Amino acid sequence: ATASAEPLAMVREALRWRLARPVLVDVSDDDDTDAVFMEAFRLGADVVTANKKPLAGPLDRYRALRAAAGTHARLLRAEATVGAGLPVMDTLEMLLATGDRLVRAEGCLSGTLGFVMAQLEEGVAFSAAVAEAVRRGYTEPDPVADLSGADVARKAVILGRLSGIALAPAPVAARGLVDASLAGLPLPALLDKLRALDAGFAAQVAAAKRDGRVLRYLARVEADRIEVGPEAVPLDSPAGRLQGTDNLIVFTSERYESRPLVVMGPGAGIEVTAMGVLGDILRIAAERR
Amino acid sequence: ATASAEPLAMVREALRWRLARPVLVDVSDDDDTDAVFMEAFRLGADVVTANKKPLAGPLDRYRALRAAAGTHARLLRAEATVGAGLPVMDTLEMLLATGDRLVRAEGCLSGTLGFVMAQLEEGVAFSAAVAEAVRRGYTEPDPVADLSGADVARKAVILGRLSGIALAPAPVAARGLVDASLAGLPLPALLDKLRALDAGFAAQVAAAKRDGRVLRYLARVEADRIEVGPEAVPLDSPAGRLQGTDNLIVFTSERYESRPLVVMGPGAGIEVTAMGVLGDILRIAAERR
Repeated sequence: ATASAEPLAMVREALRWRLARPVLVDVSDDDDTDAVFMEAFRLGADVVTANKKPLAGPLDRYRALRAAAGTHARLLRAEATVGAGLPVMDTLEMLLATGDRLVRAEGCLSGTLGFVMAQLEEGVAFSAAVAEAVRRGYTEPDPVADLSGADVARKAVILGRLSGIALAPAPVAARGLVDASLAGLPLPALLDKLRALDAGFAAQVAAAKRDGRVLRYLARVEADRIEVGPEAVPLDSPAGRLQGTDNLIVFTSERYESRPLVVMGPGAGIEVTAMGVLGDILRIAAERR
Repeated sequence: ATASAEPLAMVREALRWRLARPVLVDVSDDDDTDAVFMEAFRLGADVVTANKKPLAGPLDRYRALRAAAGTHARLLRAEATVGAGLPVMDTLEMLLATGDRLVRAEGCLSGTLGFVMAQLEEGVAFSAAVAEAVRRGYTEPDPVADLSGADVARKAVILGRLSGIALAPAPVAARGLVDASLAGLPLPALLDKLRALDAGFAAQVAAAKRDGRVLRYLARVEADRIEVGPEAVPLDSPAGRLQGTDNLIVFTSERYESRPLVVMGPGAGIEVTAMGVLGDILRIAAERR
């Protein structure tokens, strides 16, 4: 809570002069802004977040956050946390509001990892694919944050919680492309380490190809399990057909059962993330009118 | 207007005992319910429609409808008119509300025609594909309503109007798979006529295949032109990869330019159409709270 002392004080100060319909927007990368959100709810503000961390922490903290929103009749929206501006949360919300029940949400939630998997498919060595992703600015400053799968796991947890599929403490099985312990290495040293993985990935890609499959970094959210990791999927499936850095979310529900509802497109970038945030603010404004 | 006399009277009667937030829902197949909508606006009701016809008629009538909604500060929602429950209109609305500008909306808007094109791709004769679509209950009572492209053209016009892409009287170039003059024939007689087209379609499919393409029934909405008809598209494109009766909508905008935003899934059926209608009612309820 120490880390939040300053944002907390700022929020308290700002909400002393209450606007008619105050909305707190979190575009930070801070860990514990859920405490700030709860204070904002108490002071009469709704919350929009592009920051995944306050929604993907321990389940009891997420439940407390939801309870606080309920107690103070406040809204919490998070479209930009998964797929940036793509209509992921909106679609989820509409399915649930109209009485559907989600069975499974799965897809490719990282443009960075999508790019790396596509490079592997084209025969590029893993270390070279990562180097190219870094060169193009697709990765976090420390690429291990992407490669370890931690960021995708957060998105999967948020999908599970907001969809109501995985409200219980579902076990999260997250397999990274690399071990999280590599975090913090300077880039040349990291790429050196990654070279040791090149042959292994090439063998996996070749084995998948023999089965008419391709490797994709998948997130799958079901009632009793959240899985995140590389997987060989049929070439002729929505994930298999995905190109470049596009994101993909496939919703299977009671209503969309034999054929799923699919949303696809660029899932990262400043403009489309800003769209997700602004869209949430506009929805709140419309409801508070 | 004679045809609307009864609905008009019903709406007037119902709205005499005004609910707090009345919503008129059109799930009819009537031609001129735009007159009923305007009366509903005047009497203080919002409107939700699954019926395409009142939005796809002459442009001046659509403009008058919009003007009436504006004058009386009423809402008009039509999610179910394109893609049933798929988030097509919602996505469009969110793109525009957050300041994006649509460049193009294109896709496959008919599950029936999607099925027929997929059958052609598999080598089934055109007349046999239509017979099978009828047998499975995919078509309107008179299959010519689907095959002439009139229904898809209506959806394209609605997309153009609601997206603001084609608010001017854009020319609509609609090519059907069969001529609309075949309407009204008994099924055996119709299938007899269609057999004369089998060889032509088989040749088109074969020619497309030689180019790495497949035939799809496409709708394309741009500022200066709305096109609807069969087209040979690359196998490796969103439309080319489409399967079965799924619908596909591809939005290209200033923000989603190099890579489009794609929505895909079942676009017909009672449950998913009801979802589109109920979702619109819930959005109105939220905004009128």
